[in-house]
Amino acid sequence: MAQHPKALDDVFQALADPTRRAILGRLGTGSASVGELAAPFDMALPSFMKHIRYLEKSGWIRTRKTGRVRTCTLEKTSFNVIETWLSAQRSIWDGRTDRLERFVSTTHDQEGPE
Amino acid sequence: MAQHPKALDDVFQALADPTRRAILGRLGTGSASVGELAAPFDMALPSFMKHIRYLEKSGWIRTRKTGRVRTCTLEKTSFNVIETWLSAQRSIWDGRTDRLERFVSTTHDQEGPE
Repeated sequence: MAQHPKALDDVFQALADPTRRAILGRLGTGSASVGELAAPFDMALPSFMKHIRYLEKSGWIRTRKTGRVRTCTLEKTSFNVIETWLSAQRSIWDGRTDRLERFVSTTHDQEGPE
Repeated sequence: MAQHPKALDDVFQALADPTRRAILGRLGTGSASVGELAAPFDMALPSFMKHIRYLEKSGWIRTRKTGRVRTCTLEKTSFNVIETWLSAQRSIWDGRTDRLERFVSTTHDQEGPE
């Protein structure tokens, strides 16, 4: 999946909702039909379908219709998108820590041996 | 930071915007004033301040005003909130993989030695 900003916007936006996070959690245990996914929620089907479509559009799930049943499957690569972003952030801090360590080390060296 | 759904909504919602992600990236290199943070963006200050307030409200940054300068600092614990959620998702899949392995192993055992 692309790492360009719009894709990241959608990937994170999809997670900013408890129903969508719960759907992803359920799909972590295996594929399920829209009916099975909707069952635990006290929500009209059209509203629920909006969440399904948002998860599909943002790349979190794939759906496939066979007859009258639409089956949803988790697209785990989206987790990689988030983890890539998180590790990029950590690199920024680590770079900062490295510079700080070099500074402390250099300062210490300039003080000469004790 | 609390793990209840509303907090997670806000933490993820805050990341669904390229300006806010860029601010967090910049703050990863150290604290900065709102003026320094706003400089790279072609954006009116009131619009920029909305992003700053959103990041503060959602727990991503702390801000402190000294005289006329407001300084922003990254709140790294918010990354833990995301990582906790990610690792919970992974546990769900791993549980599924474990069950699958047990099933395969059991099936194999029942077939008896070759």
